[in-house]
Amino acid sequence: MSSFTGNHILSVTQFNREAIDLVFNVAESMEPYAKRKKRTTVLDGAILGNLFFEPSTRTRTTFEIAAKRLSADVINLNATRMSTTKGETILDTVRTLEAMHTDMFVVRDMASGVAHLIASHMPDHVRVINAGDGRHAHPTQAMLDMFTIRQEKQDFTRLKVAIVGDILHSRVARSQIHALNILGVREIRVIGPRTLIPTEIESMGVTVCADMTDGLDDIDVIMMLRIQRERMDGQLIPSEQEYYHRYGLTSSKLQFAKPDAIVMHPGPINRGLEISSEVADSNRSVILNQVTNGIAVRMSIMAKLMGGQEQRK
Amino acid sequence: MSSFTGNHILSVTQFNREAIDLVFNVAESMEPYAKRKKRTTVLDGAILGNLFFEPSTRTRTTFEIAAKRLSADVINLNATRMSTTKGETILDTVRTLEAMHTDMFVVRDMASGVAHLIASHMPDHVRVINAGDGRHAHPTQAMLDMFTIRQEKQDFTRLKVAIVGDILHSRVARSQIHALNILGVREIRVIGPRTLIPTEIESMGVTVCADMTDGLDDIDVIMMLRIQRERMDGQLIPSEQEYYHRYGLTSSKLQFAKPDAIVMHPGPINRGLEISSEVADSNRSVILNQVTNGIAVRMSIMAKLMGGQEQRK
Amino acid sequence: MSSFTGNHILSVTQFNREAIDLVFNVAESMEPYAKRKKRTTVLDGAILGNLFFEPSTRTRTTFEIAAKRLSADVINLNATRMSTTKGETILDTVRTLEAMHTDMFVVRDMASGVAHLIASHMPDHVRVINAGDGRHAHPTQAMLDMFTIRQEKQDFTRLKVAIVGDILHSRVARSQIHALNILGVREIRVIGPRTLIPTEIESMGVTVCADMTDGLDDIDVIMMLRIQRERMDGQLIPSEQEYYHRYGLTSSKLQFAKPDAIVMHPGPINRGLEISSEVADSNRSVILNQVTNGIAVRMSIMAKLMGGQEQRK
Repeated sequence: MSSFTGNHILSVTQFNREAIDLVFNVAESMEPYAKRKKRTTVLDGAILGNLFFEPSTRTRTTFEIAAKRLSADVINLNATRMSTTKGETILDTVRTLEAMHTDMFVVRDMASGVAHLIASHMPDHVRVINAGDGRHAHPTQAMLDMFTIRQEKQDFTRLKVAIVGDILHSRVARSQIHALNILGVREIRVIGPRTLIPTEIESMGVTVCADMTDGLDDIDVIMMLRIQRERMDGQLIPSEQEYYHRYGLTSSKLQFAKPDAIVMHPGPINRGLEISSEVADSNRSVILNQVTNGIAVRMSIMAKLMGGQEQRK
Repeated sequence: MSSFTGNHILSVTQFNREAIDLVFNVAESMEPYAKRKKRTTVLDGAILGNLFFEPSTRTRTTFEIAAKRLSADVINLNATRMSTTKGETILDTVRTLEAMHTDMFVVRDMASGVAHLIASHMPDHVRVINAGDGRHAHPTQAMLDMFTIRQEKQDFTRLKVAIVGDILHSRVARSQIHALNILGVREIRVIGPRTLIPTEIESMGVTVCADMTDGLDDIDVIMMLRIQRERMDGQLIPSEQEYYHRYGLTSSKLQFAKPDAIVMHPGPINRGLEISSEVADSNRSVILNQVTNGIAVRMSIMAKLMGGQEQRK
Repeated sequence: MSSFTGNHILSVTQFNREAIDLVFNVAESMEPYAKRKKRTTVLDGAILGNLFFEPSTRTRTTFEIAAKRLSADVINLNATRMSTTKGETILDTVRTLEAMHTDMFVVRDMASGVAHLIASHMPDHVRVINAGDGRHAHPTQAMLDMFTIRQEKQDFTRLKVAIVGDILHSRVARSQIHALNILGVREIRVIGPRTLIPTEIESMGVTVCADMTDGLDDIDVIMMLRIQRERMDGQLIPSEQEYYHRYGLTSSKLQFAKPDAIVMHPGPINRGLEISSEVADSNRSVILNQVTNGIAVRMSIMAKLMGGQEQRK
């Protein structure tokens, strides 16, 4: 009956297609409770530790709201972790919180593998959710993205999907590619400057496109990535103007895609850098739907993880 | 039946006398719940987004307590907003939170008009409360001030009220003057150094007084304002000592007012700058009553705003 | 019936042996609720103000979880207090929060006596808990430490206890010594460099030992203290290596103590400075038990304090 491998949510690769479908079906059943003025008692009295060692308002807040909708208590720790402590202090911090009977940890860190490290040191009854670790993975983001695609397009097997931007530094892109492959989409393309495309990315089953004209041709789903402005130092990207000119999603570039193509972005968006305001605010954009779906999908994942705990006890 | 204009609370000028009376009557009915160990379920499951782009412990905490007393969940966002983003990013932030099914936003910003900007971009079912925007308005502060005056003095039409201090930079003073006019007080005086009185303030129906002796003569209510120490650069105010000597409310200056005059201050107070400790801690001071009343008045305003929403659905 | 003196918890010295036993018995009855997925309604609707003027994740979080388990609401204030305001502003802050109907304050400050100062200015129905004031006291830490010792060793009167480290700057050590004396342990030793031992410490009924060999001989309970790395400037401690060599608790030094001696630490631990990882993670260490016990013991203390209030009304 266990529909994914492991006690924790660390990577999309733990799921098969059936497991993802189950998460989505539970998420749909959570939608009325994700809306205003309702709560479920699924996690009544449970404690969620929100451990964000890298700042994030959006993801942290979504997990907090999702947990409260499930009647759990939330402890926020917006810690700054010194890299010199090399994971030793981070483990002491988490063990201390676990000793206070925290049931579940949501972990974000700038270093890849931190959620795994924490998960591997937790007792059996504690659950860990990776909310973004370095360049590695951000599984709940990819899950809510897939949920949004399913709402709009239903059948994954016919879809051609393009991921645009800084693939190299993006854990979101990695998790999206894994999820799209598991769900069996017809084609995945990654589009961006050579300097921002990992060298062996084709091994993940994607096609690399250097420009938007070819890359967006006949595409159903366009998944934009956020450009970190701190990369704009001339090393990897010549200039903001040049980047926007070549890879920014404008109405004119959007015409290369299918007429009913949808536009996605994990947020926060940089208007006039990776996307024009016209496109971001158009009816082709499902960016705010992604945010909304984040509540129900995260409720589903947390309920599932803790439900598994319930049976084990 | 709608007792004030609009879906949001942006300015005191949206209210007429009857509408303010209604807010006060509901606030009185909220008082038992504003006290310890009780909650009402009026806003059970609703989500309040506390957006303070300018720091404020007192107002933020009062809104948080008031919301929790109404059984709502509270999300605190103490963001620092870069002025260069010119409202574009602030709107994306708020839209994102709205997409998480936030029902109500309480907004403070150093720029005038930010709450209006946000309100004008929200869907019909979302409510916005202005908790202070630049020099413009702070309507819930003025409402709780009026509620406190009513507790002490009942009939507004006989009252002479003085507002003392930095009128120029004060959104509190602007909102107080509007509210006092709506409630029909007999006379409003503003007292302060010429450099801190706006040039056309008389058009708001107030008399300007340059010194405390004349200004406080025969006064029923003295509303002190907080002096921002950063104005103390010699440009607008010669020195702290000089300011305290001329405009600081001491026991001797208090004698110019009526024997039963009350002393108010929105807090936090600067002891020895705009007010003496003797006066602040005397039985003439209702400063802590203002804080207490802030809970019930804000409960009333939030319940009213969301109740209006309920009917519309 | 009142089992300790006063309305507030400011110091362990307010308790006698019977009063401590009562706290422990209530803490034991709280243990099922301190665990996951349960809440009691003992403090339903009460408001706890967490006033931490000195940062502390561990203590603040424990109080927050304990309060929520009792169904109270928690307001966190992680203020930075300017020393120049000399307690005047701190009192205004607390009075303001009290005016919002906060029922209880948990106070930490870098200056000794701040919790006392606040307590002495509160009305009768408000409770104050000292969560650490300067070098003076940290009573709830000492109480949870004693509770942990009782779990492991039962009878206090047979115990020899050693406290190791920076006694001079440690409020934890002071509170522990008081509590151990009240509970009637057989012997208390303090161990550390001469520069970190207060000159008149023997008057508290302890023996001073300059080295670990003698100090740990025949000891039942070893209570390590945290070394503040900012003391490592060569004035009080020659170097980290030297300190660890002489006073760091390693497996070899642990052999000087009784074979069943337990190792305690208030956390957060500095691995490789005051304690080795081997000892900290061994089955002799009850460090994480201390954390766990902090929830039930603080629930007990808060319920007791507020219960007293209930009867008075």
